[in-house]
Amino acid sequence: MTLRSFALSCLLPCLLAAPAHADEGMWTFNNFPSAEVKKRYGFEPTKAWLDQVRLGSVRIAGGCSSSLVSADGLVMTNHHCARSCIDNLSGLQKKDFNRDGYFAKTVADEHKCPAMEMNQLVEITDVTQRVQDATKAVTADKFADAQKTEIAKIEKDCATGDDVRCDVVSLYRGGTYDLYKYRRFQDVRLVLAPEDGIAFFGGDPDNFMFPRYDLDVTFLRIYGADGKPLKTDASFKWSASGAKDGELTFVSGNPGATSRTLTVAQLEDDRDFRLPTRLFRLSELRGFLTEYQNRGAEQKRHSNDRLFGVENAFKAIKGNHGALADQALFSKLQAAEADFRKKVNANPKLKKDYAGTWDAIAALMKQSRGLRKEYASLETGPWSELFAIARTMVRYADESSKPNGERLKEFTDSRLPQLKANLLSEAPIHKEFEIARLTWSLTKIREDLGPDHPVVKKMLGQKAPAEVARALVEGTTLDQLVALAPGKDPKTGKPLPAAPDTTSRTALFTAGKAAIDASKDPMIVFARSFDLEARAIRTRFETEIEGPLKKQQELLARARFAVYGKNLYPDATLTLRLSYGAVKGYMEDGREVKPFTTIGGAFARHTGADPFALPKSWLDARAKLSLDTPFNFVTTNDIIGGNSGSPMINKDKEVVGLIFDGNIQSLGGDYGFDETQNRAVAVHSSAILEALEKVYGAQRIVDELKGKPAAGAPASQP
Amino acid sequence: MTLRSFALSCLLPCLLAAPAHADEGMWTFNNFPSAEVKKRYGFEPTKAWLDQVRLGSVRIAGGCSSSLVSADGLVMTNHHCARSCIDNLSGLQKKDFNRDGYFAKTVADEHKCPAMEMNQLVEITDVTQRVQDATKAVTADKFADAQKTEIAKIEKDCATGDDVRCDVVSLYRGGTYDLYKYRRFQDVRLVLAPEDGIAFFGGDPDNFMFPRYDLDVTFLRIYGADGKPLKTDASFKWSASGAKDGELTFVSGNPGATSRTLTVAQLEDDRDFRLPTRLFRLSELRGFLTEYQNRGAEQKRHSNDRLFGVENAFKAIKGNHGALADQALFSKLQAAEADFRKKVNANPKLKKDYAGTWDAIAALMKQSRGLRKEYASLETGPWSELFAIARTMVRYADESSKPNGERLKEFTDSRLPQLKANLLSEAPIHKEFEIARLTWSLTKIREDLGPDHPVVKKMLGQKAPAEVARALVEGTTLDQLVALAPGKDPKTGKPLPAAPDTTSRTALFTAGKAAIDASKDPMIVFARSFDLEARAIRTRFETEIEGPLKKQQELLARARFAVYGKNLYPDATLTLRLSYGAVKGYMEDGREVKPFTTIGGAFARHTGADPFALPKSWLDARAKLSLDTPFNFVTTNDIIGGNSGSPMINKDKEVVGLIFDGNIQSLGGDYGFDETQNRAVAVHSSAILEALEKVYGAQRIVDELKGKPAAGAPASQP
Repeated sequence: MTLRSFALSCLLPCLLAAPAHADEGMWTFNNFPSAEVKKRYGFEPTKAWLDQVRLGSVRIAGGCSSSLVSADGLVMTNHHCARSCIDNLSGLQKKDFNRDGYFAKTVADEHKCPAMEMNQLVEITDVTQRVQDATKAVTADKFADAQKTEIAKIEKDCATGDDVRCDVVSLYRGGTYDLYKYRRFQDVRLVLAPEDGIAFFGGDPDNFMFPRYDLDVTFLRIYGADGKPLKTDASFKWSASGAKDGELTFVSGNPGATSRTLTVAQLEDDRDFRLPTRLFRLSELRGFLTEYQNRGAEQKRHSNDRLFGVENAFKAIKGNHGALADQALFSKLQAAEADFRKKVNANPKLKKDYAGTWDAIAALMKQSRGLRKEYASLETGPWSELFAIARTMVRYADESSKPNGERLKEFTDSRLPQLKANLLSEAPIHKEFEIARLTWSLTKIREDLGPDHPVVKKMLGQKAPAEVARALVEGTTLDQLVALAPGKDPKTGKPLPAAPDTTSRTALFTAGKAAIDASKDPMIVFARSFDLEARAIRTRFETEIEGPLKKQQELLARARFAVYGKNLYPDATLTLRLSYGAVKGYMEDGREVKPFTTIGGAFARHTGADPFALPKSWLDARAKLSLDTPFNFVTTNDIIGGNSGSPMINKDKEVVGLIFDGNIQSLGGDYGFDETQNRAVAVHSSAILEALEKVYGAQRIVDELKGKPAAGAPASQP
Repeated sequence: MTLRSFALSCLLPCLLAAPAHADEGMWTFNNFPSAEVKKRYGFEPTKAWLDQVRLGSVRIAGGCSSSLVSADGLVMTNHHCARSCIDNLSGLQKKDFNRDGYFAKTVADEHKCPAMEMNQLVEITDVTQRVQDATKAVTADKFADAQKTEIAKIEKDCATGDDVRCDVVSLYRGGTYDLYKYRRFQDVRLVLAPEDGIAFFGGDPDNFMFPRYDLDVTFLRIYGADGKPLKTDASFKWSASGAKDGELTFVSGNPGATSRTLTVAQLEDDRDFRLPTRLFRLSELRGFLTEYQNRGAEQKRHSNDRLFGVENAFKAIKGNHGALADQALFSKLQAAEADFRKKVNANPKLKKDYAGTWDAIAALMKQSRGLRKEYASLETGPWSELFAIARTMVRYADESSKPNGERLKEFTDSRLPQLKANLLSEAPIHKEFEIARLTWSLTKIREDLGPDHPVVKKMLGQKAPAEVARALVEGTTLDQLVALAPGKDPKTGKPLPAAPDTTSRTALFTAGKAAIDASKDPMIVFARSFDLEARAIRTRFETEIEGPLKKQQELLARARFAVYGKNLYPDATLTLRLSYGAVKGYMEDGREVKPFTTIGGAFARHTGADPFALPKSWLDARAKLSLDTPFNFVTTNDIIGGNSGSPMINKDKEVVGLIFDGNIQSLGGDYGFDETQNRAVAVHSSAILEALEKVYGAQRIVDELKGKPAAGAPASQP
């Protein structure tokens, strides 16, 4: 309600110059404004301090943040970041850990999360010169290819084994290129997850709202290649008291994407095309999934995580759209661009090099709109896990035989370990859900491309989307990780011969190109049938739009450095950033919003009806709990989606909270930061301890967090 | 795909001046540009010609158009305009006439459509002076009330019986006010409906597309108060050959609403707020209804009409949004306003009277955004037929005792006959569907207003939306038209006393205010519980936004007359209009689209899978059909939603086609008309005859259309 009218008194002007008057910025670790922090808060992070914080921060490969919180590899993140693990384990064990929570009483009960990968950023190297040199002499249409080849080379040289991941990151939209080297962990296990009822208390209605009362926390543990808990000295300590009002706080995590340096033409494209298109689709999906959940309890369970993701994205993107629709904000963004252009035009050298950039980007935006539907339909879609597996197989067969630099980027050597782990993950696949979503997706593709589009005709033939989806999903054996046991022919009753080994996903993948090319699995055949067309639209998009746009954005980044200097932070890139701020309330609709809520507040908000129903464990523990324990709180840290699960630490590198949300006003943060209103929302560290001890009886975790010698298993394992 | 880039070479400039170079305009019958038609097409409609066309045109009160096509009251409209009748009769007779079609072999088989009303426009009187005088001396906040009182008086004086309906229509957004007097028909019966498979062949994918192959026709019959088919001399004759390429065509129908005279501030509001908000909601509803249909065949049947309506609205409004997102179009609209403002400012008298209007409207738009969520949630919603019935009952009890001029406008004397007919209609109500939609709606209200809004707390209490919805829908007896038969108590097995008479909708309504006020029906209690708050937000909207906006728009209309003269057509108002044009193809993506399709084309497009499956009746009749019969065709007539069902006639007032759609390019027609691309889409009159004869064996209808003495029932009835 307040987003619509939020006043951005200090927006792009603050960003473009160094933000000297706001806790603004998602800073890289190699360009952190320590002096500025000292000026504002009296504390100056040193390089050693920064290095330690970086190593204690762990990215979840799917797009969340987390932190090491014990010497035995215990990791803290948000419940909503571990949802797919919780759901997958539920499916495998025929339980509902999302609804009921999970606590591994001993390390032996810590079960592996299917397809979960964590990355610890161990080194950052500037490779700008190499990357930019590789595209210096090429035309715009060859830009993407030339850059991809060079990046694949740099990454391959760096990635020396399956436990290393290397990504070249384009910062400042091509202003600099840094090589990020990660230590990769692929054995992550579930330790403790509270019930969804308290992790997401208030549900979608309270999502992005404050005051708030969520224990959005889950503990995982990283295991080494030896199958034992990871020994580490990089972990954060736990604060004795947690965050206090006014205290300096740091958030170390992986903000996904911001749009603060887009041109006005790109912002208009966002407002009028890109965001509405996404929101229409998300809305429809939301209605579909909500009603799908009425099919039954099992269907509800296996679609929960999807529905959460869709509702969360819808609310966030709607907030972004609302920010751009706000004329006061949009005028400021226009004014900032006008200032930038004026300064470029005022300098003959800059004018010559950069003045045409804005118009070139505007033309590319227009051109890209002609390609998006086909790209989304054929290359991003269709929406089905089984289809995604089939496509990956088909492409893997083709790509793996090519030289590294010529492959599609997700098949380059440095990306293969994660790709294989995902492909062969034991995460359960629900065929009923697959049929429903593939039906829906094929219907949308027909809607977007029209029934007369050649690929749509190829996909559907003379059939309806539901028939095609059912035949593909029921016919495929790609959901099987191991070969099917021989069974009886349902018609004749005669025993069937043992299924050939390639009927399992693992076997087919292992058998390699010839087997995949020869496979008659209907989903493989389907994926193969329009792979050429899908690749063709991707190539067009990369050569006609992406490459030329990257080229223009590099120019724009250079112009920005020339005009405003290098003391800037880059737009978010789902890589590690550090933000600073302080615990601080704010004003909303003329009234003060206090920075803390308490555990007692959750009981006051309890109605007994979902999503305002506290779990039984909490109702039972009520008498034991200190109701005035701080529960959730807000700070001025500048964060965005992807920061979920980030540790909130004090200057002594102690955990004082756990980021899990932003307030509704912060949704405009995609386009700028307003310190008066934007707030990061965190679980207070004291509430976590209180709940672990008194609700969940998880003393072994409490001891571990406090650094006491573990009474339980981790210590007994070495 | 083409909408996005459609070029409007001649938009507002053509509209604001007289449109001398395009077949543009939805003209009122008392300001039709006959001379212009003569200049362009060599035929000048006379007053007598216009009067006859007006009387042959019949509005369906829900928002469609139709025409009298025989002396015995036979009416032709679109299948999609008669869908609710078809669905309701299906429900009452436990059939699926939507899927299977319906043909009344004799008049005795013609069944009454529940709650269907038709209006024939018999007289138009200018009442501008009276209406404007009534608001001359009042302040902006009293404007809406003062105008409502005067209009109620005028309408009451005119409406001399239940068979007369009188509406004061605001044309040119307050430039003139005309009193439209209608003859009202409330006994309309279903004669012939083809199967949905051919009426809506191609379904949503082909909706708003051309080439097209739809027999979107349904025949109804108006019956008089004597229960006999209406005798009329106002009907249109049938053309022997139907429309030819290049032929002059007229469309007489009721376009619902256009936005061609909105200010730029209003257009921005549409683009950035109003249309996205509607589209998000429609998308979600679409996903919900699509999956709801999977609950079973009966659920599919009873939600079909809703899903069609939602998909149709989504596609249309998305087209509108796309038109405004098109920067070329938007710039033209901005330029047109700039021209208008410049001309006003150039004349001191005009400047003094009107220069402030645009800014005043912009301020009102901004202000209105603060009220919309509450208005939509509490006054437009919640979304449930049973709730709507309950609210009407509660308000009827209060309003009917007030003086006519002080009532809410839907309860004024001239509106009561239709209100009662709707309220007491025997259209079946499906409780399962009611629970599902009310649950959804309550969830959306909580989302929009927040769980802490006092009315949301009142609605939900400590319960979840689904629990509240189930209790209300299962507990109410408002779905019953007649008193419930006494039954057994499901728990004790003992016979229950005869239900008190007020448990039926009819009885409660008839019992009047005291009984309604005393009713403990849970839906009545629910509606009553927040009626004050709903009325309060409505009052705020009417006094703070609607009245002041009407006042400003009246000023703007006067300024427009002063600057551009009176030779203009007004924005559409769901009242009778006449447009002229010609049969004409167009260019799309560089290739020519021919104006006609043929019946053979439908067979070529048949795949056998919904929505491209021809009904069995058509497949069986294939050999008999002349496959080169023109099926659908396009013309340059300027139409919009609401025109569905309009007769397309030639200069001899003969039916040559039946409007049922516009092409995708025409969706921008809300904001302007582009003769090069916008096309009306119609069923060819020859295809209708061909199908009636050879597919449906409906010779008695064919004879009736051809004016032959009816062999069947109508003639035998008098």
